[in-house]
Amino acid sequence: MTAASNESVLLRRDESRVAFLTLNRPRAMNALSGELIDALQTEFDRLAGDAAIRCVVIEAQGDRAFSTGHDLREVASTRDYAFHHSLMTRCSAMMLSIGRLPQPVIAKVKAVATAAGCQLVAACDLAVASSDATFATSGINNGLFCGTPSVAVGRNIGPKRALDMLFTGTFVDAATAMRDGLVSRVVPAADLDRETKALAERIASQPPQQIASGKAMFRKHMEMNVEQAYAYATDYMAGAIQREDAQAGIDAFVNKRPKPDWTGK
Amino acid sequence: MTAASNESVLLRRDESRVAFLTLNRPRAMNALSGELIDALQTEFDRLAGDAAIRCVVIEAQGDRAFSTGHDLREVASTRDYAFHHSLMTRCSAMMLSIGRLPQPVIAKVKAVATAAGCQLVAACDLAVASSDATFATSGINNGLFCGTPSVAVGRNIGPKRALDMLFTGTFVDAATAMRDGLVSRVVPAADLDRETKALAERIASQPPQQIASGKAMFRKHMEMNVEQAYAYATDYMAGAIQREDAQAGIDAFVNKRPKPDWTGK
Amino acid sequence: MTAASNESVLLRRDESRVAFLTLNRPRAMNALSGELIDALQTEFDRLAGDAAIRCVVIEAQGDRAFSTGHDLREVASTRDYAFHHSLMTRCSAMMLSIGRLPQPVIAKVKAVATAAGCQLVAACDLAVASSDATFATSGINNGLFCGTPSVAVGRNIGPKRALDMLFTGTFVDAATAMRDGLVSRVVPAADLDRETKALAERIASQPPQQIASGKAMFRKHMEMNVEQAYAYATDYMAGAIQREDAQAGIDAFVNKRPKPDWTGK
Repeated sequence: MTAASNESVLLRRDESRVAFLTLNRPRAMNALSGELIDALQTEFDRLAGDAAIRCVVIEAQGDRAFSTGHDLREVASTRDYAFHHSLMTRCSAMMLSIGRLPQPVIAKVKAVATAAGCQLVAACDLAVASSDATFATSGINNGLFCGTPSVAVGRNIGPKRALDMLFTGTFVDAATAMRDGLVSRVVPAADLDRETKALAERIASQPPQQIASGKAMFRKHMEMNVEQAYAYATDYMAGAIQREDAQAGIDAFVNKRPKPDWTGK
Repeated sequence: MTAASNESVLLRRDESRVAFLTLNRPRAMNALSGELIDALQTEFDRLAGDAAIRCVVIEAQGDRAFSTGHDLREVASTRDYAFHHSLMTRCSAMMLSIGRLPQPVIAKVKAVATAAGCQLVAACDLAVASSDATFATSGINNGLFCGTPSVAVGRNIGPKRALDMLFTGTFVDAATAMRDGLVSRVVPAADLDRETKALAERIASQPPQQIASGKAMFRKHMEMNVEQAYAYATDYMAGAIQREDAQAGIDAFVNKRPKPDWTGK
Repeated sequence: MTAASNESVLLRRDESRVAFLTLNRPRAMNALSGELIDALQTEFDRLAGDAAIRCVVIEAQGDRAFSTGHDLREVASTRDYAFHHSLMTRCSAMMLSIGRLPQPVIAKVKAVATAAGCQLVAACDLAVASSDATFATSGINNGLFCGTPSVAVGRNIGPKRALDMLFTGTFVDAATAMRDGLVSRVVPAADLDRETKALAERIASQPPQQIASGKAMFRKHMEMNVEQAYAYATDYMAGAIQREDAQAGIDAFVNKRPKPDWTGK
């Protein structure tokens, strides 16, 4: 663990080229305090330049919650607009950083993920849910419409399902989250650690520059119209084929040789 | 009922801060005649300024149809382009009004919803379907591609499923509509009235200005790229936290007091 | 068959106003060589002006694959950037041509569809999958991120599921592809030929100009914001009602006469 002690709000351990970031406020349901938001941003900034890490997993301490979103005690501690605006600005910047990281980022979700905690799941590239995980944009039940969460959740699950969650705060189960596109995999609770680790290590064994450039390209072209997207992706693709990792991989395939080992490159 | 008689094409009754609008042309399968389109527009215009109403339900008279779309007898009554253009323009304006209303609008669907009737379901914020409801964009079977319905339906269910419905006019059942995102809930036929009422009343008990501003923000940011959307939602959120309804709700949560009663505000 | 012999990389047969294009490189898993890409483009260019054809089916020879994407032997044959850029440019243009054809295009998929083969499924208007078909954007397993496939696949299945497929190359089954929106129908393997033919013939019996103009309009408005889309679709719709095919269809419906026969028009 790189954090000073188990009392740090965010822990990090690196295993097999995967960075595991652990939200570590279990007594506060891993709520995203300003301190935790800043700690996530700090780690994302470090990871952006860390070629040794190929995949990032965001997990949470304890069995009660992945994260219940903003720390309402902190939010309620002041009525200062500048404080709230700063808190929200830093949170949104942190969420956007996930999409900009060169590494794929996986949310590993057990128990509840609500409000900005649900947003964190939606903002990740991938999400593996325990079959007993639940999800809600439940801010409205505390008087606050989940505005920033709706950006990420709406882009995952579409308008009808998103508005139902946003207006009612209803909890949805993992199977529903899977059907709707909020998570990308569901596994039995007992397998969550193992399956998420296997997924992360599989991604970590892929050619890293193909993954990094492919992720960036995907997020960019999804904001374009289809003709622009094809023009952009076509240029990307012609360049990607020229790269050494692709040449080695294609050569191995064509000549029926073992796949290159990309883990150390 | 505010309408003059049961012969009015649109009925309205208000219960517990919920306005129920009833399409009342059961012998015509609740087809959206120009008169009914205009009656819906008139009610939406009234509701836009009606702070006493917190949620709107669109339902239909009779057991045969939610609505089968435009009244083809009326459409066939003339070949005057100006007449048809006016009819379509008023219909599209009415559909867009749903997204602009401050109140969430729920379609309550039993039996068939076809063509512009299916569009009406798609245009609503939420939709509760009876398990025996069916849906189709079946205009093509009468020689007319469902052009305006495809705007709303395509934005709910994506291109592959939308084009299948549009080219073939095939009916899909409620479970399929749910999977694809055309409706947000499916309930047994016997529970449709009760479940829809409970959903509407739940929404009506939420803080109304959070709901109204949140709905408007959601529909606006869904048209932006993700960075613009976050910038917009961040400013929205910082302001929303300052509001009295949010302060009271968060304060109740933090201090373990009962949730504020927003029903009368 | 219009191709010179069974050795041609693309076969075409026309039946009941449906053109069946058969990828005919079964020993090469129907990989999309430059020659096959160009042959598809040539047929699409012919079909664009062929009023006798009302629907197009893309199918594949053999039981092993729909298509496994680019021919990696050809890709590996040179390191010339201009060659690769030309290959990708022609492939993207061919994929975009599908959306621009006046006829609906159906992918008929048995066995595996991977990389640009999966993209071809995603680029079609409709897709009928055999229940034992499988799909993957598996280029990453050969060192090459599926960049251009991600344009079409991402627009079908959304970001969470698309990134999972793109980063891992995992195969998904037909039921998963259906849930996510990559295909529009799944049928038992034994029924694939019959069901796809029935679907194509159903579409071929619809009024062709309504289908062609509706398809073009749908693809155009899906790139607009919702207000622009409604304005555009409203004008489209008013004009479409005036057309003879719509007038005849609506007139038949209103007067309870048999539906017009559009098959010969």
